[in-house]
Amino acid sequence: MAAAAAAAREPEVIRDKAAMRAWSRRRRAEGKAVAFVPTMGFLHDGHLSLISAAVAAAAGPVAVVVSIYVNPSQFAPTEDLATYPSDFAGDLRKLAATGAVAAVFCPPDLYVRGGAGAGESGGAVSCLEDAGGHAHETWIRVEQQEKGLCGNSRPVFFRGVATVVAKLFNIVEPDIAVFGKKDYQQWRVICRMVRDLDFAIEIIGSEIVREADGLAMSSRNVHLSCEEREKALSINRSLVNARTTALNGNNHGQQIKDQIVQTLEEAGGQVDYVEIVEQESLTPVVRIDRPAVICVAAWFGKVRLIDNIEIQAPS
Amino acid sequence: MAAAAAAAREPEVIRDKAAMRAWSRRRRAEGKAVAFVPTMGFLHDGHLSLISAAVAAAAGPVAVVVSIYVNPSQFAPTEDLATYPSDFAGDLRKLAATGAVAAVFCPPDLYVRGGAGAGESGGAVSCLEDAGGHAHETWIRVEQQEKGLCGNSRPVFFRGVATVVAKLFNIVEPDIAVFGKKDYQQWRVICRMVRDLDFAIEIIGSEIVREADGLAMSSRNVHLSCEEREKALSINRSLVNARTTALNGNNHGQQIKDQIVQTLEEAGGQVDYVEIVEQESLTPVVRIDRPAVICVAAWFGKVRLIDNIEIQAPS
Repeated sequence: MAAAAAAAREPEVIRDKAAMRAWSRRRRAEGKAVAFVPTMGFLHDGHLSLISAAVAAAAGPVAVVVSIYVNPSQFAPTEDLATYPSDFAGDLRKLAATGAVAAVFCPPDLYVRGGAGAGESGGAVSCLEDAGGHAHETWIRVEQQEKGLCGNSRPVFFRGVATVVAKLFNIVEPDIAVFGKKDYQQWRVICRMVRDLDFAIEIIGSEIVREADGLAMSSRNVHLSCEEREKALSINRSLVNARTTALNGNNHGQQIKDQIVQTLEEAGGQVDYVEIVEQESLTPVVRIDRPAVICVAAWFGKVRLIDNIEIQAPS
Repeated sequence: MAAAAAAAREPEVIRDKAAMRAWSRRRRAEGKAVAFVPTMGFLHDGHLSLISAAVAAAAGPVAVVVSIYVNPSQFAPTEDLATYPSDFAGDLRKLAATGAVAAVFCPPDLYVRGGAGAGESGGAVSCLEDAGGHAHETWIRVEQQEKGLCGNSRPVFFRGVATVVAKLFNIVEPDIAVFGKKDYQQWRVICRMVRDLDFAIEIIGSEIVREADGLAMSSRNVHLSCEEREKALSINRSLVNARTTALNGNNHGQQIKDQIVQTLEEAGGQVDYVEIVEQESLTPVVRIDRPAVICVAAWFGKVRLIDNIEIQAPS
């Protein structure tokens, strides 16, 4: 009986688009909300918190779908698509252990590839810049919010994210979808896309989950050496200090940014950006006199980490 | 009783996005397919043929939704948004007379407008190039197919079409959608978008409907003078002749295009383009040795008309 109960909690693994949509429509017909958590796998407690948030967001019966798909179109050719970590068996064990996941959608590929331009294998090509008249060619751009922050150093990233999320939305047809606020700009881009394109989906932004020492959880943390990991703690430390400074009445954005850059560089990090922006529009703010978020991207060794901290308007 | 029966055929007029989606979901729950015909109004027999095609495409019970919305985002500032013809009362009468339309969706506006940039009225702004961090900013581009043909002279057109159609798809949630093949590139762009973004919608391309004298039906025909209208017959005449030439064994694209240009110019038209392209990819063909389509855009007076003719591969 114990084994049967455990087996009953195993998520169903679905690889086919049509089967995924049919599964989702059956759950809807049974009166369940479908809640969706898109991931690129190599799951950690941050991902698992998204599943809890999905369950919490549903008012009644809910079927949670987690997708695992490393989306090639959001990686530039110079980026780490080839070394992005994966552990499918481990992911499945973690998802089963939550007891809260009904299905895992893990398609072998989501894009129509062209002929000669796609390579012999037809396998993953970063950012999918295929030639030819029959390959994937439809892209969604959130033209303001995709600029700035990570958009500066990752020019195809948000185009790839918005497009693959729209595809997943059209396949899974969820009522609710959950995104982590660690990828703050991504979350806002998805919110804006959902608003602008009238997707019938409620988007939940879920709080950042941190290790005991404060490092924001990320699949890429596995690539940090012990020493780099120690240095990377400067990110969260500097953000917490910045918020304290702002809440204590110093709302000068530039001074706060300078302090963060100094802390990160002293720790040995290489700063990509430190920006303070409005929470919803992501437009830069000079003074923190309205709800804002401080966003950071920095390299520690060969690993690029991002983090952020929200600051409600100081009283 | 007769009056009641007539009243029963009156389409329900829906102006609100949420009400439209709820209506559509109720029809689905009743076991009906939802078939969708997007239009910009000022309906003619070409539009009405799309409704017949929608009914014919459904295997079982069907609820047909026609939308009437002049989409500002597909008009460049120099184009004819302000003079685009409209006759809502007449449209409703024509739709009711078909007896086949269950609902008409006619939203006052579909876009979130920014603050100061949107003008005092918040009304239609061609191509919607609003400034500000809160206005509509999400655009869908079908990057290969939107190039060439009408894409050359109407640079924002297909961006606006793809985006508004995606919005309408997400609001109406149809099973089937019908587009006229007179707007050949538009039809292909929508087919490609649906494929690439995984919309669960079957797209039907419906044949061109012509006046008795051969002129392709268009809402813009109303702006032609009698004389211009007579001259515009050269479009269909030259296309039919071109197909005859090709089917008789002359597959030299350039010769065929030159002949069409000459015919149009002799009739007093100003040619925007004459192109021969592959039917699906819309890539140009030099010889008509595979399924191709000849596409024409030309001005007669102040009216820009488009038309096309498909040629299956000659034997």
